[in-house]
Amino acid sequence: MLSYQQARDWLLERARPQSAQQPLPLLQTHGRILAEPVWAGLDVPPHDNSSMDGYALRCNDLAPGMPVSQRVAAGSMPQPLQPGSAARIFTGAPIPPGADAVIMQEQAQLDADGKVAFSIVPRAGQNIRLRGEDIAKGQEILPAGRCLCAADLGLAASIGLANLPVLQLLRVAVFFTGDELAEPGLPLAAGQIYNSNRYWLLPALHSLGCEVIDLGTVGDDLEATRQLLRDAAAVADVIVTCGGVSVGEEDHVKAAVEAEGELALWQVAIKPGKPLAYGRIGGADFIGLPGNPVSGFVTLQTLVRPFLRKRMGLSEAEAVIQQVAAAFAWLKPDMQRSEFLRVRKVMGRQGWQLELYPQQSSGALTSCAWADGLAWLEPGQAVTPGDSLRYWALGPA
Amino acid sequence: MLSYQQARDWLLERARPQSAQQPLPLLQTHGRILAEPVWAGLDVPPHDNSSMDGYALRCNDLAPGMPVSQRVAAGSMPQPLQPGSAARIFTGAPIPPGADAVIMQEQAQLDADGKVAFSIVPRAGQNIRLRGEDIAKGQEILPAGRCLCAADLGLAASIGLANLPVLQLLRVAVFFTGDELAEPGLPLAAGQIYNSNRYWLLPALHSLGCEVIDLGTVGDDLEATRQLLRDAAAVADVIVTCGGVSVGEEDHVKAAVEAEGELALWQVAIKPGKPLAYGRIGGADFIGLPGNPVSGFVTLQTLVRPFLRKRMGLSEAEAVIQQVAAAFAWLKPDMQRSEFLRVRKVMGRQGWQLELYPQQSSGALTSCAWADGLAWLEPGQAVTPGDSLRYWALGPA
Repeated sequence: MLSYQQARDWLLERARPQSAQQPLPLLQTHGRILAEPVWAGLDVPPHDNSSMDGYALRCNDLAPGMPVSQRVAAGSMPQPLQPGSAARIFTGAPIPPGADAVIMQEQAQLDADGKVAFSIVPRAGQNIRLRGEDIAKGQEILPAGRCLCAADLGLAASIGLANLPVLQLLRVAVFFTGDELAEPGLPLAAGQIYNSNRYWLLPALHSLGCEVIDLGTVGDDLEATRQLLRDAAAVADVIVTCGGVSVGEEDHVKAAVEAEGELALWQVAIKPGKPLAYGRIGGADFIGLPGNPVSGFVTLQTLVRPFLRKRMGLSEAEAVIQQVAAAFAWLKPDMQRSEFLRVRKVMGRQGWQLELYPQQSSGALTSCAWADGLAWLEPGQAVTPGDSLRYWALGPA
Repeated sequence: MLSYQQARDWLLERARPQSAQQPLPLLQTHGRILAEPVWAGLDVPPHDNSSMDGYALRCNDLAPGMPVSQRVAAGSMPQPLQPGSAARIFTGAPIPPGADAVIMQEQAQLDADGKVAFSIVPRAGQNIRLRGEDIAKGQEILPAGRCLCAADLGLAASIGLANLPVLQLLRVAVFFTGDELAEPGLPLAAGQIYNSNRYWLLPALHSLGCEVIDLGTVGDDLEATRQLLRDAAAVADVIVTCGGVSVGEEDHVKAAVEAEGELALWQVAIKPGKPLAYGRIGGADFIGLPGNPVSGFVTLQTLVRPFLRKRMGLSEAEAVIQQVAAAFAWLKPDMQRSEFLRVRKVMGRQGWQLELYPQQSSGALTSCAWADGLAWLEPGQAVTPGDSLRYWALGPA
């Protein structure tokens, strides 16, 4: 049996990061992975400008009643400042050559002749944003391998970029196996259960940022499974299935992958979880998740998510682990396996703490829908209230 | 000047939660808001079933060499167990009537005659998952007002639901104002700047779960702005603009909203930020963000996001605030305004701490793209390293 860390490292080693890239219009790059660093091609702001609505002047010219010689709105270009005068100026408008300070309008008074007097003495540079103060030409503003967020797009726009180079989406084909699976909405025949895996796995992969190809459900049939694997390998970078990878003789996925490519089948020392398959079919990676929904969910989070994130080309593939105090006891730990308990981080009297979902043994997704994270215990690690535990926040899903 | 809390409470009071709902196929409900609680219409699992691959038997019948009288795969229905025999059974398969335990196959040995012997003595109930153990018929499994995540969809599928009732998307129309705005990709004319607001605001609203209607950019023109407001009110639940709401005389948005509906214009005591407009035009809410990108970004996060989340119908509208130790000093706090510093939560030697983006005064989005959260200081609150600060994690964007 492989330890959790061994299995994770083994998978991460095999994750060849996506490298093919394409330029996309800025608004279509949201949530995509930046393929190359972005450098600023210009200064931001592009010219010295006013950070206030007010009056621009030369400090040395300050006088009790100054003529207002021009009006500079944002978007217009000023004339050089006439000596001894002030310029009416608005936020964001360029500073007229010759001016060296802006006095905000609340500190200015216009008289009947249109001359302006000020209630303060300005210092040079006051209320002026300097050219290149925010972003200097040539500066790297976004690193490669980053998932682009809203502020990143705004930042790229502020230096005039209409497109960004992003990595191509990872195409993940998914199918489900099992004669006992019925689709929701249909009545259950004797012995059937609803295929819940399809309904959490597809959106979870979508949330991860993959292009998901849904190939549906196949019965416990070797030939049909082999055909589906070939179809999947033809269109996808990664194939993910749920079920059919334990040692029972009804599991055809194992045999089908072995016939079409190569397969490593592991018992990984995690709970819930345990069976996990990795293989290759043609150019595609194959990942077989356990069919129990909770086992599959936890295995996706803890083993497959880091693999897929690296495979997608993200520079930060691994989850961020926090330390949070337990608000529960867990007195009979599994001695062989790392346990991933479904927990919720809540604010208690003593600060943040982890609450435990009471039914950890269940195969139903209730615990996963309730939880916002996993408490990661080493084999044999018992918990008493107050213990500091490793908390693995569930990604956006 | 309104305090931050006053402005937030005032806005939240005015947010009438979305109530119109529609049923959607399960896979289309990901990220949508559940309109009604979901109750389980059946037991999960629907019948007692095996949690292992192995042999089902009646404990009292245990004998050294037992005949295997039937074979029960997942998806099939078993016959009543023939007395004195065992049934070959697989994970998830229904327990034959009469059997009361399952022995895992690793603890069983088949002899040449096809009889099975066991290396353990089973106890009643062993390796059997009981009907309704995971979800009992009639139980509420998902509450109304919840943003549906992947596990929720799996949970709904496991009780056979093909559709869920979700709230209609909040339609948010967005436009931008200013003669000085140029679109990225075009050369900058004298005095122009790139419209970065469009490129962070549209994806940020999309990430919040709104249906975003992009109405483009309008120059500093009162009639054109009025027309755009009427167009927006005809199609949207909420209108959001950036810029044009400060007191400068070039700002036409204020006058346009006043002409077409009603407007409250505030100075909110936050930094960055300050001007914020709320109004109504016909049946639509109007929100005017400050035009400075960083001010707009922080105002969206701290004031508008809670408003929109409540308006969308989410039961948890407000952000979760953590306490995290400062790894920086901030010795000259603003005495009148709450400050929202752009920070990053990082693991230090003493645990999690907040690092400060060095250039807090900048108008460029660099700090917002770098940060993963905001440190929320009260007016006059200075910071020395080690102080416990309120940390507001930026939502997915």
